[in-house]
Amino acid sequence: MNRRELLKFTALALAAESAAALPDSASQASEKVQRWDAVEFSHRGPAVGNPFVDVTLLATFRLKNRSLTVGGFYDGDGVYKIRFMPDELGVWTWSTASNAPALHGKSGAFECIAAEQGNRGPVSVRDGYHFAYADGAPYVECGTTCYAWAFQPEATQRQTIAALAASPFNKLRMCLFPKWYQHNHKEPPLYPFPRNGETNDYSTFNAAYFQDLDRLIVELGRMGVQADLILFHPYDKWGYQSMPPDVDERYLRYVIARFSAYHNVWWSLANEYDLLKSKTNADWDWYARILRESDAFDHLRSIHYGNTQYDYGRGWCTHAGVQDSRMQLGAQWRQDWGKPVVFDECRYEGNIASTWGDLSGDAMTGRFWKAAVQGCYGGHGETYLDASDVLWWSHGGVLHGTSPAKIAFLRSLLEETIALGHGPVGFTNFSSDPMGARRANGSVIFYYFDEHQPAEGTFVLPEGKTYTAEYIDTLKLTRTPLAGQYSGNAQVKLPGTPWGSLWFREKGVP
Amino acid sequence: MNRRELLKFTALALAAESAAALPDSASQASEKVQRWDAVEFSHRGPAVGNPFVDVTLLATFRLKNRSLTVGGFYDGDGVYKIRFMPDELGVWTWSTASNAPALHGKSGAFECIAAEQGNRGPVSVRDGYHFAYADGAPYVECGTTCYAWAFQPEATQRQTIAALAASPFNKLRMCLFPKWYQHNHKEPPLYPFPRNGETNDYSTFNAAYFQDLDRLIVELGRMGVQADLILFHPYDKWGYQSMPPDVDERYLRYVIARFSAYHNVWWSLANEYDLLKSKTNADWDWYARILRESDAFDHLRSIHYGNTQYDYGRGWCTHAGVQDSRMQLGAQWRQDWGKPVVFDECRYEGNIASTWGDLSGDAMTGRFWKAAVQGCYGGHGETYLDASDVLWWSHGGVLHGTSPAKIAFLRSLLEETIALGHGPVGFTNFSSDPMGARRANGSVIFYYFDEHQPAEGTFVLPEGKTYTAEYIDTLKLTRTPLAGQYSGNAQVKLPGTPWGSLWFREKGVP
Repeated sequence: MNRRELLKFTALALAAESAAALPDSASQASEKVQRWDAVEFSHRGPAVGNPFVDVTLLATFRLKNRSLTVGGFYDGDGVYKIRFMPDELGVWTWSTASNAPALHGKSGAFECIAAEQGNRGPVSVRDGYHFAYADGAPYVECGTTCYAWAFQPEATQRQTIAALAASPFNKLRMCLFPKWYQHNHKEPPLYPFPRNGETNDYSTFNAAYFQDLDRLIVELGRMGVQADLILFHPYDKWGYQSMPPDVDERYLRYVIARFSAYHNVWWSLANEYDLLKSKTNADWDWYARILRESDAFDHLRSIHYGNTQYDYGRGWCTHAGVQDSRMQLGAQWRQDWGKPVVFDECRYEGNIASTWGDLSGDAMTGRFWKAAVQGCYGGHGETYLDASDVLWWSHGGVLHGTSPAKIAFLRSLLEETIALGHGPVGFTNFSSDPMGARRANGSVIFYYFDEHQPAEGTFVLPEGKTYTAEYIDTLKLTRTPLAGQYSGNAQVKLPGTPWGSLWFREKGVP
Repeated sequence: MNRRELLKFTALALAAESAAALPDSASQASEKVQRWDAVEFSHRGPAVGNPFVDVTLLATFRLKNRSLTVGGFYDGDGVYKIRFMPDELGVWTWSTASNAPALHGKSGAFECIAAEQGNRGPVSVRDGYHFAYADGAPYVECGTTCYAWAFQPEATQRQTIAALAASPFNKLRMCLFPKWYQHNHKEPPLYPFPRNGETNDYSTFNAAYFQDLDRLIVELGRMGVQADLILFHPYDKWGYQSMPPDVDERYLRYVIARFSAYHNVWWSLANEYDLLKSKTNADWDWYARILRESDAFDHLRSIHYGNTQYDYGRGWCTHAGVQDSRMQLGAQWRQDWGKPVVFDECRYEGNIASTWGDLSGDAMTGRFWKAAVQGCYGGHGETYLDASDVLWWSHGGVLHGTSPAKIAFLRSLLEETIALGHGPVGFTNFSSDPMGARRANGSVIFYYFDEHQPAEGTFVLPEGKTYTAEYIDTLKLTRTPLAGQYSGNAQVKLPGTPWGSLWFREKGVP
C-alpha cells in the first residue's frame, strides 16, 4: 500500500465511522494487503486532555501461532493510528488494548497477499557482512546523504526525489530533527513540538511535522531507497539534542510507532553521537534498548560517530555505520565486529572550505572502490557551493558531481557478479593492504589498483578453477576483456594505467 | 680537486719518488687545495704480507690549534693513500704515524684556498629540520635511488650521469655492495673481496672495486649530487650481509678512509636494516660508533628500515631516512626525533608487479608535496619494466617517468622562497592533517590540497603581515597569481580543482 492508497484508505475509514467510537476499519478479512506493505488502522479516541501522554494504545497482530505487538500513536484531531507491516502470507487478526475505553478491545483481520514485483521487503544482514532484502535478493548498499531534506521546500524535495531516481543511491541518511549548521541557517517550516519563541512544548507532538516525514519515507520506499533515519544529532539550536529523558523516550516510541511499519526504514541512533555532549553512554544504551523493545520489525540499527569510534561490537548494532576515511581498515573492522561495515561518511565530493567536503569526484569514487575491495560499502555525499546555499549533503536538490555515474558503474559490477557477498584477499608482492576482494565461493575475484599502475602481476587464484579476466578503468568506465584463461599463480599482463581494476570470473559460473 | 686532477697529482707524485721511500708529495705549502676538495697523498709502503691487515696508517692534519686525524688506506701495488678534506682556509700541515717504517713520520703542508663558485662543501643539518651546505647555502633535499648503478656497464653509468644532470635530483642512494634481487640477477663485474667460486677471501680488498666507487662518487660530487652510500643491505647472494665482525669493521674503516674526504658523502648504515637477520641492534650500534669515531668530517648519518621503524631519536643519527608512505606522519616524527625527516623511500613511480614499484607519476609527485607540507623531504625512485631489465631504481640508465619534471617544479618553488626552513601548519576547518607549511619567519606559507578541491577557504595568516597569493597546479605546473592582498583570517577564492597548492608570500619580503 503506497502513501496515496493509505491516505485514501484512512479517509474512507474516517468517513464511515462516528467520531465517538470508530469501528475497526479493516474488520473483514476481505481487506488485502501486500506482504511488506504498511497497513494502517485509524480509530477515533479522546481528543481532550493530552492524548500524546495520557493515552496508551497497543495492538497485537496474530498469524497462526505468531503474534507481534506494535504501539499505536496519536495523529491529532482525535485520530489514533496503528501501523503494521505483515511479513508472512495469510489472514492476520488483530486486537487493541488501551487505557481509553474508546480504543480498547478493537479487533479485525486482513489478508496478507503476495508482494508485487519490486516489493522486496525490508533489508537485513546476510552472510555476516552483507545485506539482502526479505525476498532473498541481495542488497548492494550504495548510500548517500541529505541530512535535512525533510525540512526544505517541496519543490526542492521533488528535485531530490528526481535526482535520487536517476542516481545509483539506494540508501539515504536523513535527520528526523531539523538542522542548524554551516550552510544550514534557516528555520524549518514546522517544528516537531509546538514552539513558543525559544521554548519547546515537549508535552505534545506536532502531528503535521511527522506526517511530512511519513510522506517522504513512503516516497523513498516506492523508489527502493532505504531511509536511514537519524534519531538524534548535534547540529541543533532548538534544544532537541538535550531534551528531558521522558521526552527522549516518548519521542523514540512515537517515531517507532509511526515509521517502523515502513519496510525501508533503518535506524541510526545518532549522527556524530560523541558530539552530543549532554548524553552519556548509558543514554545511548537506553535508546538502543527502546529501539530493540519497540520496533516489532527489527529494522537495521547503527550509530555514527564524529571523533570517537563507537564500539560496533555491541549487541544492539546490526552493522557499523562509520565516519572514517581510513578505508584500508575496513576489512579488519569487519572481522573485529563480525558485522557489515558501511562507510556512511568518508568525506564528500564538493568544493566547500571544509576538508570533509571538498573531495574531487574521482577521490569520492575511489573511496567506494577501496571500501568494496575490503568487503565493505562506501557512502556518498556532495557539497558543491551554491548561490542559494542548497547543498545536496544537507538539502538535497540537484546532484552536480562526477562521482555518482562512476559509483553507479561500480554498483552494477558488484550486483552483476559479486552480490552473494565478498571479502578481502591480500594483494600479492609485499603489500600489506588488502587490495582485492573475492566472492564467497571464489567464483569472482577482483582487485583495485588505485594510484598503482602495474603492467604485470601474479595473482594467486583458487586451486582447481579456471578464470577469464577483465580490466576495468574505474574512472573512464571502460571494460576490456583480457585474452586467455587464468588459473593457479596467474601471470597477467595489464595496461599499466592507474585507477584500474582487475576482475577474474570463473569460467562457466554465472 | 676533481678525479682527473687527483689522478694526475697522484701520478706525478709517484713518478717523482723512489719506490722504497716516497717523500711527501705535498711537502711544500706551495701546493694549493680548494676548500672542501679532497686532497690525496700517496706513499709507497710494504707490498708483501697482507698490507690491508698488517699495516696501520694514520695522518694528522693541523691548522692553528685544530687537528684532525684520518686513516690511510692501501690501494694495491704497494701504494698507500691518505685523503683529506680541508674545511678552513690557511696552511695545513700534516704528519703520519704507521707501524710500517716506510710510512711513519711522513709530513708535509698545503694551502687551503677559497672554493670556486659551485663548490659549496658538505651538507649538514640546519635549523633543526633542514639542510645546508657548508658555505651556508640552503640544500633542498631532493633524492632518488639507483641502488646498484655502481655495478653496471660504464655505458649505463654514463646514461645515469646524464639523466641525473637533467633531473631535479641532488642526492642518490647507492649501495657499496653488489645487489641480488628481483630484476637484479647478474654478477657484478668486480667483487669487493677476491672471490674463489662461492668463497670470499675477506683477508684483502679488491682495490679496483673501490677505485670504481671513487670515480662515481667524484662524478656525483662534480654535479652537486650527494652520494648517500649504503654500507650494508640484505639483497645479497655473496655473503656480504653476514661477514665476520672483524671484516665488518675493516670494511667500514676502509670505506671511511677512502670516501670520507669527498664532500658529497652521506652514510646510510643499511638499507632495510631489519631484513639483515644475522645482525643485532648491538651490531648496528657498533657500526654507528665506528662511523662517528673514524669519519673526521662528520658526514650525515642515517639508516633505512623495511618493516620495523628505526628509532631515529638515537644520538648517532643526524636525520631520519625513512621507508614509509604515511606522509601525514612526517611532521609528528620530525618533532618526536628532533631531526630532519627524509622519506628516502615512499614507493616508486613505475609499473612492475610489486606495489612498492607501481605508482603513477602523479602519485609519486604527490608524495613529494605531502612531505613538503609536513616540513619533510620526499624520495624518488623509478621502476618501469624494461626489455633489458634496466630499471632506474637499481641500475640507473634513463628516466622514463613523468614525476621528475613535476618534482623539479616543486624543488624550484621550495628553493625560491622556502629555503630557510619550513614547518607544518594546521589546515583550517576540522582537518587534523597538517596540509600547509610555513617558512620559519612566516614570510611564506603554503598549502597543498591533494585530492581536495576547495573553491574557497579561510586561511589564518600571522598578525601584522600582508601577503600576496598564488595558486599552483602541481600536476599541470601552472602558476596563477590571485588578485588582491591577504591578511588575518584571509578569505580566499580558489579555482576548485584538485592537486592544487596555495602560496602566500609576504609583501616586500624576498
